[in-house]
Amino acid sequence: MNIVEIINKKRIKEELSKEELSYAFNGYLNGIVKDYQMSSLLMAICINGMSDKETFDLVDIFIKSGDVLDLSSIEGVKIDKHSTGGVGDKVTLIIGPIVASLGIPICKMSGRGLGHTGGTIDKLESIKGFNVSLKEEEFINQVKNIHLAVTGQTKNLCPMDKVIYALRDVTGTVSSIPLIATSIMSKKIAGGADKILLDVKVGNGALMKTMEDAKKLADIMERIGKYYKKEVVCEITDMNVPLGDNIGNSLEVIEAMDVLQGKKGKLRDLCIDVSAKMVSMAQGISENEARAKVIENLDNRKAYNKFLEFVKAQGGDINSLEVSKNTIDVLSTKNGILKRINTLNLGELSVSLGAGRRNKEDKIDYSVGIVLKKHLGDRVMTGDTLCTLYVKDKNIEINPNDYFEII
Amino acid sequence: MNIVEIINKKRIKEELSKEELSYAFNGYLNGIVKDYQMSSLLMAICINGMSDKETFDLVDIFIKSGDVLDLSSIEGVKIDKHSTGGVGDKVTLIIGPIVASLGIPICKMSGRGLGHTGGTIDKLESIKGFNVSLKEEEFINQVKNIHLAVTGQTKNLCPMDKVIYALRDVTGTVSSIPLIATSIMSKKIAGGADKILLDVKVGNGALMKTMEDAKKLADIMERIGKYYKKEVVCEITDMNVPLGDNIGNSLEVIEAMDVLQGKKGKLRDLCIDVSAKMVSMAQGISENEARAKVIENLDNRKAYNKFLEFVKAQGGDINSLEVSKNTIDVLSTKNGILKRINTLNLGELSVSLGAGRRNKEDKIDYSVGIVLKKHLGDRVMTGDTLCTLYVKDKNIEINPNDYFEII
Repeated sequence: MNIVEIINKKRIKEELSKEELSYAFNGYLNGIVKDYQMSSLLMAICINGMSDKETFDLVDIFIKSGDVLDLSSIEGVKIDKHSTGGVGDKVTLIIGPIVASLGIPICKMSGRGLGHTGGTIDKLESIKGFNVSLKEEEFINQVKNIHLAVTGQTKNLCPMDKVIYALRDVTGTVSSIPLIATSIMSKKIAGGADKILLDVKVGNGALMKTMEDAKKLADIMERIGKYYKKEVVCEITDMNVPLGDNIGNSLEVIEAMDVLQGKKGKLRDLCIDVSAKMVSMAQGISENEARAKVIENLDNRKAYNKFLEFVKAQGGDINSLEVSKNTIDVLSTKNGILKRINTLNLGELSVSLGAGRRNKEDKIDYSVGIVLKKHLGDRVMTGDTLCTLYVKDKNIEINPNDYFEII
Repeated sequence: MNIVEIINKKRIKEELSKEELSYAFNGYLNGIVKDYQMSSLLMAICINGMSDKETFDLVDIFIKSGDVLDLSSIEGVKIDKHSTGGVGDKVTLIIGPIVASLGIPICKMSGRGLGHTGGTIDKLESIKGFNVSLKEEEFINQVKNIHLAVTGQTKNLCPMDKVIYALRDVTGTVSSIPLIATSIMSKKIAGGADKILLDVKVGNGALMKTMEDAKKLADIMERIGKYYKKEVVCEITDMNVPLGDNIGNSLEVIEAMDVLQGKKGKLRDLCIDVSAKMVSMAQGISENEARAKVIENLDNRKAYNKFLEFVKAQGGDINSLEVSKNTIDVLSTKNGILKRINTLNLGELSVSLGAGRRNKEDKIDYSVGIVLKKHLGDRVMTGDTLCTLYVKDKNIEINPNDYFEII
């Protein structure tokens, strides 16, 4: 086989065989296919798409590139949850403890942030001492003991996804529904859970900008699940506003704790929805019953205590969270109603403050970020604080109109 | 500017500004933009195309990446000719001497072969001692003295084209009309000629497979010429059969000499056409008048003597041409009429014999190649020789049906 012929085939929109996909992707993992060839193929896939068959084949190639986790020693229905990521998405930090507090085992492998979307692992690392690199045994034992563990990686799981994800990020080839589905589903299947709840974000702050694309992604992921005989439930949620008020690593952990301690609002409502779905899937009860249990464990602080137990189990010191003391208030320059929040731009702003990565090698500043002070529909007066930036360096000039539309 | 944003813009088919194109391409030349990013952008351009404005801008960026040749010290209208390349294309070796023998200065910079299409420079290098790396002064002086010089490179001309061409070749991004036009026209314009005749090949052995694509390429190249105030004439010629009977470096030089010494056939007819067009452009006479002059100088051997003078001027020993003594006759396995020759496959076969390069670093064997023994429409009997392979290694198995369709 010849990689240039394979690329040419995809360039003219022909279907690739499993052998051709394997030659290209495994060849890249082995160094036979060069990064400049893989990125060219990825762009051709981005623009020309992949058939269902190609996608199922590619998921298999991704899974077989590494180990598959065996969670059978953990009792009960193991459930995993994945969000396609967005700005300010700290949902895992909230629903993990809620669901685990109801005795359901949550074995969660999470990723780091790239571009304007953050990653759960980065958020957890803002807690000093928190170990995000559990060994497989530690990971499984922790779930047996306290029903919840979150780690970046245990075994050599889907190494293919790692290298392809890193390459896509720097070559403008992130926005491909079949590639996103392959990345998510191969990891979820290799992660060994019995059932998977997928939260597909849609809106100006998400990878999926339109409901149409979000539905396509949900569809193909459900079909991949069916093909691999895993129960997969997708829900599509709004990412036209950041998830909650806080963006940035320490700030998001703090907000997650606030919600676990009773703070009301859209973020809490979303977390109750997601948790109820997971509990319903795991326990085979109705969503309403599940919802009642979830709210109970939020109200009685069992979920919050589970969070503290979880942080401690992974070596984290929850009192270590640091937020920058340098702040800048972004003030409104007009009177009106807050009509629209440019979530993507806020995400990009948080990256430029140092809360995220533009390149793989970039170091994150856990203490910086953004706290929103106004919400959609709020009445705003000139001089009102729209958001507060937590910064390292005070020399930042912000045009509020790039982020907030007030009319 | 951010290269990923630029790639994303082209991925969703938006027009890039000159600044964005310059950032991407000059960034690549400077090492700021990585090869895996450029190949991704090139694939997006391949699939989504470029507007005229983008193409004109990119030509300018290519030209300004290096020096521009100043031919003003040479008297007369300097004319250049370019073929988009094909299998067995030795036209430059024939028309160069014809046109020069009529006193018209031909300053030709040529390329090396890549993939199934050969390159004039490789063909000339099959002549021992032939210097394909003339210095600018040598190049210009030779044209002043004998009206003809062919070199691989004088100054640092379009270094951008070199690196982009090499990357396209290994990333399945060759087949892009605006990129092909940019590559050709930037070199031609930087080459300093006053008028340019472009020979666009079409057919199964050419880059342009269909007449529609060939016309598109001719159109955009003529528009680029107009934009840069150079007279550009395009002709579209057939590449559904190899150009002449011989494929391979020494073999093609020998066939060029045969034509210059009077051998009749389609190759001679084509060379007369092209030469007449060039003479007509250069001298402002009718094509019929020009054609008479061309035929005269073929018949009186002035063109052939010009070829010998030219080879000698560049240090070549014409008696050094070597053709492999190992030959394999490819025999017909059926009776019928030769309906179709798969020119692309013959080109690929010549590469696998060693006459061409698959990778930039590959060494060429000048002595190998293919000589066709039958032509389209010929009656063929079982056991007739369809072509003769000149090989290094006799252990080659060939299925004649991959190359010749007999019905």
